[in-house]
Amino acid sequence: PDTDAAAAAADRNGQLTKPPAALGRLEDLAQWYAGWRGNGRPALENPQVVIFAGNHGVAAKGVSAFPPEVTVQMVANFEHGGAAINQLSKAFGAKMDVHAIDLDRPTGDFTETPAMDDADVLAALLTGWNAVDPQADLLVTGEMGIGNTTAAAAIAHALYGGTAQDWVGRGTGVDDAGLTLKAQVVADGVARHKGGDGLDTLARLGGREIAAMAGAILRARVEGIPVILDGFICCSAAACLQAVAPDALDHCVAGHVSAESAHPALLAKLGKEPLLSLGLRLGEGSGAALAIGVLKGAVACHSGMATFAEAGVSAG
Amino acid sequence: PDTDAAAAAADRNGQLTKPPAALGRLEDLAQWYAGWRGNGRPALENPQVVIFAGNHGVAAKGVSAFPPEVTVQMVANFEHGGAAINQLSKAFGAKMDVHAIDLDRPTGDFTETPAMDDADVLAALLTGWNAVDPQADLLVTGEMGIGNTTAAAAIAHALYGGTAQDWVGRGTGVDDAGLTLKAQVVADGVARHKGGDGLDTLARLGGREIAAMAGAILRARVEGIPVILDGFICCSAAACLQAVAPDALDHCVAGHVSAESAHPALLAKLGKEPLLSLGLRLGEGSGAALAIGVLKGAVACHSGMATFAEAGVSAG
Repeated sequence: PDTDAAAAAADRNGQLTKPPAALGRLEDLAQWYAGWRGNGRPALENPQVVIFAGNHGVAAKGVSAFPPEVTVQMVANFEHGGAAINQLSKAFGAKMDVHAIDLDRPTGDFTETPAMDDADVLAALLTGWNAVDPQADLLVTGEMGIGNTTAAAAIAHALYGGTAQDWVGRGTGVDDAGLTLKAQVVADGVARHKGGDGLDTLARLGGREIAAMAGAILRARVEGIPVILDGFICCSAAACLQAVAPDALDHCVAGHVSAESAHPALLAKLGKEPLLSLGLRLGEGSGAALAIGVLKGAVACHSGMATFAEAGVSAG
Repeated sequence: PDTDAAAAAADRNGQLTKPPAALGRLEDLAQWYAGWRGNGRPALENPQVVIFAGNHGVAAKGVSAFPPEVTVQMVANFEHGGAAINQLSKAFGAKMDVHAIDLDRPTGDFTETPAMDDADVLAALLTGWNAVDPQADLLVTGEMGIGNTTAAAAIAHALYGGTAQDWVGRGTGVDDAGLTLKAQVVADGVARHKGGDGLDTLARLGGREIAAMAGAILRARVEGIPVILDGFICCSAAACLQAVAPDALDHCVAGHVSAESAHPALLAKLGKEPLLSLGLRLGEGSGAALAIGVLKGAVACHSGMATFAEAGVSAG
């Protein structure tokens, strides 16, 4: 971040017509945003939502409440404007792009082989990298991929330990038997692929859409584009980056805490306090897109309010 | 609310392209909104923010960190577009109106006399009633009034008991001595004016801007306009209505929980779960205005998403 811009934003914040700190987290958000944008009085006008879709070999194990063909069906729904994320992107003035990555070629079933080889994971990272519009001033990364809460749980279990049960949840809605199976699948995968760094974990246990989100988050940092993280799967992608470099997510805020049971623990590992807690568990970037409104409000107040001097208000 | 519209909304919600309940509270919000709008597939296009300002006799007791002249100064700031609520209204597409009510004639100091007589409170209620645009499809009521967290605390203490300390907080930022003084003032006022119903409490301990918010909330119900409640002071106005009729706030949601210390307890008394918790404590309707984004997102998803049948997605 740009320390001069952050300092200018802090100075401005202290002069605005409100009691000190009366806008709470909005003040912190605006100053964080100003620092990453390199502008003490920034605008937020061009948010971008990018959705990546991938298919997972491990879905064949029966870990999801929905069949794998739903991934490609939902991509068509995104393209035709019918999904939740289409409505939320429009509501908050974000442009939205969808990248379906090799849907006819699922990743390997990680209980048997690595999900991706080096070429595969690199291609997915680059898809994410190239998907970011350098002119965007905010990025939301979302995903679609039947089976991907299983991959995300495996990543979290591999990076942070505990038990497989600690990290699995009901995803789109598996029953108790499905949850038990999911924990066994995650335990098997992590036992097979233990060791390695964050990028090794991403390749062996992740998925193409998860790797693409990681690539996009990394590109955003290089471009000075702040990121709003979405739910459990998006955060598992972010966790792989943080495992490699502890400050890799300084340009990111957590948009929400989802109803997926391990998301609070994953956010705690990332050191991120969510902006919203509304029980969403849809993915697609939906929780993060909803949080665009909060960030827009924060930046609008910071950059649009009058100072005490400008407004002739007594400063108390 | 319109039970046919609510039923139609529930039916539609069950067909949308998402796992059941995956949009969490957004689904409940959209169905609640549909019921009050009498439309199973509503739009949210004309939100109105109304700000009322009043001055308080009790401010002379030194219960605020800011001097009383800040009320009129901030009204000018609202009118010139420089306050936080101006930026938030613009960010969420709301029209904003400001009503300064008899600022040169503060209410009575409730430690000595009733804050308002019958004619005064009726006039303020009517100002609120008449301020609502019947064409609006959502209402946020906000306020400005140096000393009004003291009035709000007195209302809550009178309605709900406990001790004065339970209900006072730092408002715009009083120190420990100020907080002790504020509790004493609240205790004195409530001891002097105990008894009576919710409207008696509103008149004796409230203020013109608080009564106006109550009038506006009531009018919105009659017009079928859902309301987003703001912070501690707005909720004290709402509490007076609920004390008269337990279902008086069924058309209202709580926009946020503020950093004012007694706001969580007041929301619990109202039976309202806040949509946001971001540490705001500014008033002006700011927290509720920020929550317009959440409600817009909820309604956009509900009314804009494709059904499984329309999108050709397998329903799992």
